[in-house]
Amino acid sequence: MTSTIDKSITLTEFLQLPETKPASEFIDNRIYQKPMPQGKHSRLQFKLCDVVNQIAEPQEIALAFPELRCTFGGRSIVPDVSVFTWERIPFDVNGEVENTFAVPTDWVIEIISPDQNATNVISNILHCLDRGTKLGWFLAPNERLVLVFLPGQQPLEMRGSDRLPVPDFLDLDLTVSQLFDWLKPGKPRVDA
Amino acid sequence: MTSTIDKSITLTEFLQLPETKPASEFIDNRIYQKPMPQGKHSRLQFKLCDVVNQIAEPQEIALAFPELRCTFGGRSIVPDVSVFTWERIPFDVNGEVENTFAVPTDWVIEIISPDQNATNVISNILHCLDRGTKLGWFLAPNERLVLVFLPGQQPLEMRGSDRLPVPDFLDLDLTVSQLFDWLKPGKPRVDA
Repeated sequence: MTSTIDKSITLTEFLQLPETKPASEFIDNRIYQKPMPQGKHSRLQFKLCDVVNQIAEPQEIALAFPELRCTFGGRSIVPDVSVFTWERIPFDVNGEVENTFAVPTDWVIEIISPDQNATNVISNILHCLDRGTKLGWFLAPNERLVLVFLPGQQPLEMRGSDRLPVPDFLDLDLTVSQLFDWLKPGKPRVDA
Repeated sequence: MTSTIDKSITLTEFLQLPETKPASEFIDNRIYQKPMPQGKHSRLQFKLCDVVNQIAEPQEIALAFPELRCTFGGRSIVPDVSVFTWERIPFDVNGEVENTFAVPTDWVIEIISPDQNATNVISNILHCLDRGTKLGWFLAPNERLVLVFLPGQQPLEMRGSDRLPVPDFLDLDLTVSQLFDWLKPGKPRVDA
């Protein structure tokens, strides 16, 4: 369940509040807490990060981060998966990833939960696209549907054997069915 | 609450089933029942139809229909408001509106309810745009937000004093605030 605190506060005030669990987002001067992640959400979030990082980390092309707070353009959001190209990842002097990300992700992925506020999720994807994000995926596990958002374009509705668009920097071939088949862990099944 | 019947049926079989209340929609070979309309939904639905018909009916430009079943492109959907230009409205020999609408609406308006499946609602708007609908509005009363869908374009997020795009055939000047102010019926208030 997404809860809202109606009292209007500033972004600076919001960022000084202690982190909550699940994370809270700051959208249009209001605070919204993300829903408690459940099984399907957790599985898809992990697999998406895993498949991207297996390809992109060894070659230092990009990195996928789950639940990373990104603060830019007046909002502070926590996408389910944020994929940053290597040169845009903030590193400290020791070569470690910085804690604070103040730039839009290159690729944003959101996985909708049954009771989640989809309006805010889509609003956040549009917020990212308007500020430089090149690709957004909106996964609806219940409908086995992915809405694909590209800057300046009408969203695409993809199902089944549709091949999902991925960013240019990533060599990944994935259909919607293959993605949702990750919900059945274990050895590949013949009947899958 | 949106309920789903998982058994896969054909569109022809679906259309032979008795109508339900609230209406059921046929999307991607599954049946989804719309949520029971509540106060804010009912009020906005009526006012949207009213404001369009006040302008468009006397001049025979267009008509707005609430809860009209539209069956085309393999789906049978019931948008909250469907606006048809006059020449696209099916009339019978007596000049009465036909019961069956088998063409996409020119302008589709959906009003999201707290527990509604927003994924299906957006999927339906995209389904319409892909088949000739010129404009889609997705109203989120809780967030005081309207997502505006235009064919081939990235959806627009509009709030407050943003002026809402309307179809060319309609001379209507409306901001997001004015639209949601309809939730306060009665005489215009100074504090509104």
